[in-house]
Amino acid sequence: MASAAPSAALLERLEAVRRHSEDLVAGLEPEDLCLQGMADASPPKWHLAHTTWFFETFLLQPHLRGHEPADSRWGYLFNSYYDAIGERHPRPRRGLLTRPAMREVMTWRRRVDDGLADLLEQLARQPRSSAAPVLALLELGLQHEQQHQELLLMDLLDGFSRNPLEPAYRQVSGNGITAQAREPEAEPLRWIEHPGGLVEIGADPAGGFHFDNEAPRHRHWLEPHAIASRLVRNGEFATFIADGGYRRPELWMSEGWALVQQRGWQAPRYWRGSGTDAWAWEFSLQGRRPLHPDAPVRHLSWFEADAYARWAGGRLPTEAEWETAASSGHPDLRELEGQVWQWTASAYRPYPGFAPAAGAVGEYNGKFMSSQMVLRGGSDLTPPGHSRLTYRNFFPPASRWMASGLRLAQEQR
Amino acid sequence: MASAAPSAALLERLEAVRRHSEDLVAGLEPEDLCLQGMADASPPKWHLAHTTWFFETFLLQPHLRGHEPADSRWGYLFNSYYDAIGERHPRPRRGLLTRPAMREVMTWRRRVDDGLADLLEQLARQPRSSAAPVLALLELGLQHEQQHQELLLMDLLDGFSRNPLEPAYRQVSGNGITAQAREPEAEPLRWIEHPGGLVEIGADPAGGFHFDNEAPRHRHWLEPHAIASRLVRNGEFATFIADGGYRRPELWMSEGWALVQQRGWQAPRYWRGSGTDAWAWEFSLQGRRPLHPDAPVRHLSWFEADAYARWAGGRLPTEAEWETAASSGHPDLRELEGQVWQWTASAYRPYPGFAPAAGAVGEYNGKFMSSQMVLRGGSDLTPPGHSRLTYRNFFPPASRWMASGLRLAQEQR
Amino acid sequence: MASAAPSAALLERLEAVRRHSEDLVAGLEPEDLCLQGMADASPPKWHLAHTTWFFETFLLQPHLRGHEPADSRWGYLFNSYYDAIGERHPRPRRGLLTRPAMREVMTWRRRVDDGLADLLEQLARQPRSSAAPVLALLELGLQHEQQHQELLLMDLLDGFSRNPLEPAYRQVSGNGITAQAREPEAEPLRWIEHPGGLVEIGADPAGGFHFDNEAPRHRHWLEPHAIASRLVRNGEFATFIADGGYRRPELWMSEGWALVQQRGWQAPRYWRGSGTDAWAWEFSLQGRRPLHPDAPVRHLSWFEADAYARWAGGRLPTEAEWETAASSGHPDLRELEGQVWQWTASAYRPYPGFAPAAGAVGEYNGKFMSSQMVLRGGSDLTPPGHSRLTYRNFFPPASRWMASGLRLAQEQR
Amino acid sequence: MASAAPSAALLERLEAVRRHSEDLVAGLEPEDLCLQGMADASPPKWHLAHTTWFFETFLLQPHLRGHEPADSRWGYLFNSYYDAIGERHPRPRRGLLTRPAMREVMTWRRRVDDGLADLLEQLARQPRSSAAPVLALLELGLQHEQQHQELLLMDLLDGFSRNPLEPAYRQVSGNGITAQAREPEAEPLRWIEHPGGLVEIGADPAGGFHFDNEAPRHRHWLEPHAIASRLVRNGEFATFIADGGYRRPELWMSEGWALVQQRGWQAPRYWRGSGTDAWAWEFSLQGRRPLHPDAPVRHLSWFEADAYARWAGGRLPTEAEWETAASSGHPDLRELEGQVWQWTASAYRPYPGFAPAAGAVGEYNGKFMSSQMVLRGGSDLTPPGHSRLTYRNFFPPASRWMASGLRLAQEQR
Repeated sequence: MASAAPSAALLERLEAVRRHSEDLVAGLEPEDLCLQGMADASPPKWHLAHTTWFFETFLLQPHLRGHEPADSRWGYLFNSYYDAIGERHPRPRRGLLTRPAMREVMTWRRRVDDGLADLLEQLARQPRSSAAPVLALLELGLQHEQQHQELLLMDLLDGFSRNPLEPAYRQVSGNGITAQAREPEAEPLRWIEHPGGLVEIGADPAGGFHFDNEAPRHRHWLEPHAIASRLVRNGEFATFIADGGYRRPELWMSEGWALVQQRGWQAPRYWRGSGTDAWAWEFSLQGRRPLHPDAPVRHLSWFEADAYARWAGGRLPTEAEWETAASSGHPDLRELEGQVWQWTASAYRPYPGFAPAAGAVGEYNGKFMSSQMVLRGGSDLTPPGHSRLTYRNFFPPASRWMASGLRLAQEQR
Repeated sequence: MASAAPSAALLERLEAVRRHSEDLVAGLEPEDLCLQGMADASPPKWHLAHTTWFFETFLLQPHLRGHEPADSRWGYLFNSYYDAIGERHPRPRRGLLTRPAMREVMTWRRRVDDGLADLLEQLARQPRSSAAPVLALLELGLQHEQQHQELLLMDLLDGFSRNPLEPAYRQVSGNGITAQAREPEAEPLRWIEHPGGLVEIGADPAGGFHFDNEAPRHRHWLEPHAIASRLVRNGEFATFIADGGYRRPELWMSEGWALVQQRGWQAPRYWRGSGTDAWAWEFSLQGRRPLHPDAPVRHLSWFEADAYARWAGGRLPTEAEWETAASSGHPDLRELEGQVWQWTASAYRPYPGFAPAAGAVGEYNGKFMSSQMVLRGGSDLTPPGHSRLTYRNFFPPASRWMASGLRLAQEQR
Repeated sequence: MASAAPSAALLERLEAVRRHSEDLVAGLEPEDLCLQGMADASPPKWHLAHTTWFFETFLLQPHLRGHEPADSRWGYLFNSYYDAIGERHPRPRRGLLTRPAMREVMTWRRRVDDGLADLLEQLARQPRSSAAPVLALLELGLQHEQQHQELLLMDLLDGFSRNPLEPAYRQVSGNGITAQAREPEAEPLRWIEHPGGLVEIGADPAGGFHFDNEAPRHRHWLEPHAIASRLVRNGEFATFIADGGYRRPELWMSEGWALVQQRGWQAPRYWRGSGTDAWAWEFSLQGRRPLHPDAPVRHLSWFEADAYARWAGGRLPTEAEWETAASSGHPDLRELEGQVWQWTASAYRPYPGFAPAAGAVGEYNGKFMSSQMVLRGGSDLTPPGHSRLTYRNFFPPASRWMASGLRLAQEQR
Repeated sequence: MASAAPSAALLERLEAVRRHSEDLVAGLEPEDLCLQGMADASPPKWHLAHTTWFFETFLLQPHLRGHEPADSRWGYLFNSYYDAIGERHPRPRRGLLTRPAMREVMTWRRRVDDGLADLLEQLARQPRSSAAPVLALLELGLQHEQQHQELLLMDLLDGFSRNPLEPAYRQVSGNGITAQAREPEAEPLRWIEHPGGLVEIGADPAGGFHFDNEAPRHRHWLEPHAIASRLVRNGEFATFIADGGYRRPELWMSEGWALVQQRGWQAPRYWRGSGTDAWAWEFSLQGRRPLHPDAPVRHLSWFEADAYARWAGGRLPTEAEWETAASSGHPDLRELEGQVWQWTASAYRPYPGFAPAAGAVGEYNGKFMSSQMVLRGGSDLTPPGHSRLTYRNFFPPASRWMASGLRLAQEQR
């Protein structure tokens, strides 16, 4: 991971990222701060506290002389999954943590922000060689907080979706969630062909920040194929449904078909309506809104994306195909970022030669490399500047609460 | 159910009861208002809304001309279990209802309070015969709200107990929860004998308010027995534990023994401590506090109460025995109310000739007469004036989140 | 418990009871011997082994000099619920015990039978005072084996009911299961009135064998009531269904209504058919057979019996009412035994002054006195001679795999 | 899939395969035929019936004039997972199918065997072009039955392992299960290096039978690496355990670590013993036997294999690495088949250009390509002649009832 010399610019960026998290919860009702809709999700307050815990645990405690950490029990409450750090509060019960109260968490955030500013000053007086690893951790903390900004919004949408009143999250200018306010447009589908051959994928070691799971850059053999110029639309997905997509087992992985039965899936997670009104609406952070046929379909599980692709006569692209196309600069290729995360055909497994980061932060990505699928791109909930073409997002194939959609690929002969 | 003429006194009582509910949540953190620790419990805000729904549904909608009810979806959210009224939000998900926000609920409460005042005025102008049934419903609404005041505190204790920070509920003067602030005292155990014979139990039809399940008053044959003058103490229960009480299956009902294994019960629900400190503490609405050996043991399941009684060479009193003793005026008999609800040996079943109240409020008590056991008395969480010697409280035998303890009885030969 | 002098008659009875168990499984396919349809049921082979274990454990090991018990691990496998004896194989996994094989179990049965014959001889040479308690245990063992004969048939019916082939149990002459081969007959319903007053119920201490839970005989106060002269019929129950009985929550206990929803109950457990054929059939030990409108309805949970009674404008009789009527010798009273067990309004709790039998056999009845309801009478699966008017059978209110039906009662004013 | 002209040799092979299935159950107790230890496993009788159903459904019904199929309900009972064929009996309840009885199933097998012989005759009179697809299905049926022979033994071991008596399966000469009768031998570990580069993997289209998931043969880029000459031994795995392997989260995938906690894993599935005897034994088809330190470790989940490899400083080989090494003919490479299936680092996903077989048999492999990992090689339970170097076996990463072990690989720089 590359690192830059400490600077006013870094401090400014730090403050901006930290402030953005707090902006996201401004305007919520106080009760919303503890809303946890399901075991996979976390309450907004927990996200604000956990990201703070991350900075305190990995930056301030080991590196800032004289830092006084928070109540020791808070470490138990706000550790997410770092086994090397210790035991932790069970994830499904995060919604029960009405205490510490929001004002206590905010006081803590302020204290940690001050500590980080002090640490930056301290690092500015150190030789680059000793400052660099700490700055790399700081960068990781920022990226981590940005990831939680997206999670916070996903989780809030999940939580609100379980309330019959269908509450709307306020409109915020300057973050992703207003993106779809612009009218979706029809967009022709073009197939972008690739002749196959040996390609290179993965993060450039000389480039900027990347997570450990994007490395090492390595060679990969591709067969001839084509990839769609744009994402699949709501209107297209509606045709799949109308054609019996959710009632035809031959379109599904066996595991996905079992889920369709068990959970009664009939449409993407947030589609709404019934009777003549069926699937005319979708639930969103703006509350219930008309489902626009030209908007990219979102909130699909991998199983739904895979079944749709099979029905459409294609398949999902592998992550190597996706990354190769995305970095080709092909003029027809659209909607790589800023709309929805795009399911790929690739299981989330290590790249050849992968080595996790050293220390407890090595638990960040590497230990999740089983039973998950890779998503590429980025969504309208992803904080600006957080996406990358080599970014490997991952979720279990049954998950649907992310802003997830798909782009088609097909064999080429 | 008896009813009184509408009066300033009734209006005053109505306002006092309604205000008391709100006093109970003053001083909580906003997040606490949505805290639901388990499926059996409800969040404080839900209690405030549900009791308001009860008045609106059973009093204002049918009887107050021109009353404009709340958003129709609120009926779905705040109906507890009245099937005759309609479908309802699943109980285990009440904690997800961050909306309507507290201020909306408070506005509703004000509007319903105003409506009730209007209704009282309206009733004052009606003949007694037509006013009486409505006033009886109003009385039921008040009793209902008082029950929820106790539930609110029980549920809050449950919710707080799941937070590793062990939060304390504020000290409130004037409600029951400060009762134990007074130092518990040693109290000798005396046996109060009864020769057996035909007795009468159940609510006096000429008396004041009572629930339908307390009637009809009827005859019952008792065998000779004795009942303890006081409740079982923490110190006595500690001796049971030290004697292997939770490890000896012969002391337990088969069903209770299975629960001991499955749930790992080793002590009353809120006893705390480990190692040399084991069971030196208990969690309470005042937070963690030393366990006082002379305080009545509390937060027992029926199975624990039953096992303790067997170990002690006695048994639980039947509800007929309890009520007969309680209404005897025997000078030695102590601690009937204001400490803990007292488990009895009686399954909760209808009295001979029992008939539920007419209409939807008939669902109040009668439909729960299976798989539950009767508790008698009243606890320090019970609002003042809400207890009665004929009161039949009931809970499933595995429940422990109520302020429940026991009094011994024994056969007499 | 009374005991008789050892005699040829007792040996003969012992042999007859033991032989009857084996007759019940003659003609089954070998695979059927391990059939366990659900956690509450046990495989036929397990019943044959467990009853043998009972005799070996409580009779031969303590009382027959030189008896060599079976492989010590068999005690683990075939102990049902006697905690005082030790750990045991989990009940839901009894169907996995393909070994010991049937022929090994039969060899064991022979060896235990021989041991019991030896023990009887030995007892014949002892003074009555020392023989009596052992003979009482032997009687208990015989009654126990008879109970398991009924359980074996209930469990087999449950197991067969889960096979889409709907297998038929063979026709056996001389045991109860052919009883219904005789054509059911219409039978007028008469109400047998009782004026109320003080009655005595429970087993006569001077009478023959009874279980500990039938004692002591004691006084009980009855209110005026009437009891039906006969059982409820299939045809009557069909009217309840047609009248929306399973769709009207006001007829049900809250707990029962939840079960109706969760389990999708629409009729008694073994009623079959669909479309125009709906409920025209019932599954039985004779396989699928036409549902006869004049046969007593069977395989009801207590919740269904209770809901039916409410719908019919009556209620279930208490066990005291049932026993008082049954022992009155009233000429109109029919169908007390030999058809179905009859749910009562009474929770299964101890009689005043109840004391369980001493030793491990004290676990027989007393530890099940929670969350169960009493059934009275006896069914066509009950071995001849095993019924008694004071017999207290008990099952959880949700159970339906027994031959259980109901008789109505009603208040009398 | 290649096909040969119908011949006496094919008939002979058909008879041999069919007979082998029956030989496997000879000597079982009758009750064992319905033994189903868990939802993932099936009873022996079910395997015998299901393989017969496969031949009848896919061969005889469509292709043999005049074939009279079995009772139509049997199709419901013995369909495994072919949605295109129709509904089916729930997998976890296969153990309840005591009927049809074994003798009925055997009669059916005979009738289907006769039908297959007739079909072969009929095909011999047809032109090759029309016979070939039917012969290909026949070959698939034979391969399918061989797969079930291994499953039958795995499932039986699982079922027996749940019986405290630890029954032993009889010794059968001529099938795999006696393989380990030969004494395991110490075997030095050598590293076989590969320089990386473009390789080809997958089944040769001109070769013999292969499943659809082994095709198409395709190019794959490998990085430099080395693969172990032999499998990991019990003794080596015991060192991992002694070094805290099951107590160190840093060695595990997050999902695997959660399973270790939930299921209490402390050793491979069938290791036995406690105290000073801990892990001195293993349960096997020969019953309990001493655990030999030089025998390959078996009955590991993928998570355990992955954690072991990490602890040992290596990793699992990818399936491309495994197949490349296996087909290299390197003289040092041992234990490719006949011992245990070998977990790989590869998620089970389609090869580039994969197309499932046409028709209902297309459900055979393709629909399981999610949340499973690939195993390569073959075990001592695999029928002789059924293994292939391109064979892709697959199981969920948590499964441990297969004969599964591992071979190490490592990066090479």
